[in-house]
Amino acid sequence: MKKIAISVGDINGIGIEIALRSHVEITRICKPIYCINKTMLNRASALLKIDIPKDFTCKECGEIFSIEAGKSTKEAGLLSYKSFCTAVKLAKQKKVKAIVTLPINKQSWRKADTPHMGHTDALSSQAIMMLGCENMFIILYTHHIPLKHVSKIITSKKLKKFLLKVYNSLLIENIGVLGFNPHASDGGVIGKEDFKIVDAIKKVNKKLGREVFKGPLVPDTAFTRKNREIFKYFVCMYHDQGLIPLKALYFDESINVSLNAGIIRTSVDHGTAYNIAYKNKNPSTTSFINAIKKATSLCLN
Amino acid sequence: MKKIAISVGDINGIGIEIALRSHVEITRICKPIYCINKTMLNRASALLKIDIPKDFTCKECGEIFSIEAGKSTKEAGLLSYKSFCTAVKLAKQKKVKAIVTLPINKQSWRKADTPHMGHTDALSSQAIMMLGCENMFIILYTHHIPLKHVSKIITSKKLKKFLLKVYNSLLIENIGVLGFNPHASDGGVIGKEDFKIVDAIKKVNKKLGREVFKGPLVPDTAFTRKNREIFKYFVCMYHDQGLIPLKALYFDESINVSLNAGIIRTSVDHGTAYNIAYKNKNPSTTSFINAIKKATSLCLN
Repeated sequence: MKKIAISVGDINGIGIEIALRSHVEITRICKPIYCINKTMLNRASALLKIDIPKDFTCKECGEIFSIEAGKSTKEAGLLSYKSFCTAVKLAKQKKVKAIVTLPINKQSWRKADTPHMGHTDALSSQAIMMLGCENMFIILYTHHIPLKHVSKIITSKKLKKFLLKVYNSLLIENIGVLGFNPHASDGGVIGKEDFKIVDAIKKVNKKLGREVFKGPLVPDTAFTRKNREIFKYFVCMYHDQGLIPLKALYFDESINVSLNAGIIRTSVDHGTAYNIAYKNKNPSTTSFINAIKKATSLCLN
Repeated sequence: MKKIAISVGDINGIGIEIALRSHVEITRICKPIYCINKTMLNRASALLKIDIPKDFTCKECGEIFSIEAGKSTKEAGLLSYKSFCTAVKLAKQKKVKAIVTLPINKQSWRKADTPHMGHTDALSSQAIMMLGCENMFIILYTHHIPLKHVSKIITSKKLKKFLLKVYNSLLIENIGVLGFNPHASDGGVIGKEDFKIVDAIKKVNKKLGREVFKGPLVPDTAFTRKNREIFKYFVCMYHDQGLIPLKALYFDESINVSLNAGIIRTSVDHGTAYNIAYKNKNPSTTSFINAIKKATSLCLN
């Protein structure tokens, strides 16, 4: 059974509850190592009134402090940062095959004065964001930038390089690449960016010696049921081009995967849910379990 | 029963087959008047081997020529243009309550040297595009323009005016307005356009005396199942922001509605489907029947 390090996320949020509730199920898939110190684990367990399973293996890290359910605090920020760093270290030392991260609060990381804004950024500036579930994955060419700046970033050279990294991370065939403008520019009548996408696809396929990448797909019909039977992986030019259909179709099931980051990392696709933390509201564990499954399957590649 | 004029679309496409096959069902909803001359109707009926129902009322228009199944021709372009103009005229003369249009081929309109590019354009430069089905409608603030130009068109004044027109056309409450950037600009961290959207919403609601418009909705979660229970009408800033989720969720059912066009007009949300025209492939009539239903319900407002 593969060892996977789990960073427990923000202790004031729902992460630790999800970890405790999912433990039995995920031990059927992998051997989890939870990055948290025993004292804080005991405190969370007592507050949640959920027993700690006997085979709940921990890697000690972080300080001891009071849990403040549903609050963004400096202490919780620091613990979640240390939990994450510990998991990454285990992966880099090859003591685990992959890491799975539970949600942090970015404001708490800022309060704790961590050197990074969030997980993906802390992992590697080269990391590529992929989100989805077994039915459909979207890979983002650009993400948290103003939409008006995306056009400038679409160059044949950059996109070709990006597509090559995507292929090298996934080693799969038949990846759909979305166009940029309405009707994929309609032959140049609605913008010119799609010509660059055509060019990048041609060049990367030539390099790979076969048609791995298909497109540019006309964006508005890319995610119809029929097209989702043809493609499972979609490269999207901007954040909402991929995230709108993903969340419309598969909101609860989705996970987050970092490609091209040096180590294998998957994550839940939801936040700390402070509003339901420590309230016995039974948060959905689907995304976490899917993240564990995907991490395990990526180890095989 | 309300009278509705139906323009039959491109005679070389699937429009006339859909009209003949749906007739019995739509006569339960309205009194249709088909804009086509009897000779061409007889020719289509013979080719399709579908009898013309006895109560199939026509408004004579257009020339007589040979049907060329699946081909874009000048003659078919001219007939579909005349069929459309006849339907519009009936509506303007108040002889019908609304018009429903079957698909045309834009290339054929060009070949026929018509003064307009397509239906919406021919109707009015002020027309607003709304697409959807009973579960969800999207209203496009911008549509067939390069995505990089959308940012410039988002001004508080223009958007406020647009939202007012939307309200006056629909007379409904609780309309969701999407943001523009990822995370609706995240408080200005990812672009500034969403401040203008906030401003436009505030101003239009103030004018209306209540909170008709809600938003800006964070685009990537706007169309989750939960949000679709809260909103049925969504104003989208650009073409694919609305059409991607609509087609992912409701591809076959959608229709097209022209708001603010002086007359009530709805349309199917598919093309001429030349590839299956006159081939006895039983094209889906769902979109057409939904278009008839929506046209009828809009007459009530």
